[in-house]
Amino acid sequence: MFTVYNETDLKDLGGGVTRRILAHGKDMMAVEVTFDEGAVGAMHTHPHTQISYVLDGEFLATIGNETKKICKGDTYYTLPDVPHGVVCIKKGTLLDIFTPEREDFLK
Amino acid sequence: MFTVYNETDLKDLGGGVTRRILAHGKDMMAVEVTFDEGAVGAMHTHPHTQISYVLDGEFLATIGNETKKICKGDTYYTLPDVPHGVVCIKKGTLLDIFTPEREDFLK
Repeated sequence: MFTVYNETDLKDLGGGVTRRILAHGKDMMAVEVTFDEGAVGAMHTHPHTQISYVLDGEFLATIGNETKKICKGDTYYTLPDVPHGVVCIKKGTLLDIFTPEREDFLK
Repeated sequence: MFTVYNETDLKDLGGGVTRRILAHGKDMMAVEVTFDEGAVGAMHTHPHTQISYVLDGEFLATIGNETKKICKGDTYYTLPDVPHGVVCIKKGTLLDIFTPEREDFLK
């Protein structure tokens, strides 16, 4: 199943954060999340495993008790129910991939 | 778990294809695969679900019986055991994410 980037919808989440749902199915979902400088992805948990890839920009990412500055190409892996979040220190975009699909994003 | 891009290893797979294993754990794995123009990722199957994201370049991607030209930001989703492959038509890189982990890549 192909998902053409220019046919996806950009959703404004407020607070300088936008989201674009890309390819997804029952087992996985890919989502681009773009942050203005200073925008925050607040600490949260979910029952999905997640990998995030920095497409561009710079972020302070926290997973559990560990915080690290990450930039283009850096990745992180978070297990279900582990608190994680980011603060954007230079405008940019994360590619978040979840397993299974984030059904809550489709409502 | 953070994976710093510059600390990952680039593996030459031959035929104008290189691979870099990024963040991974039992449930998921992220892998960058870079193709020279004309390089081929031959049709193959595996028991993992996969999402691929075009980081740059252009590819002809085939999933089952469908072939499509894809470029930056385009994504595709492949179910387990569905044949898929790519031909690179402009040098570039795919980000492949698998669930579960590709243990065969770690041997």
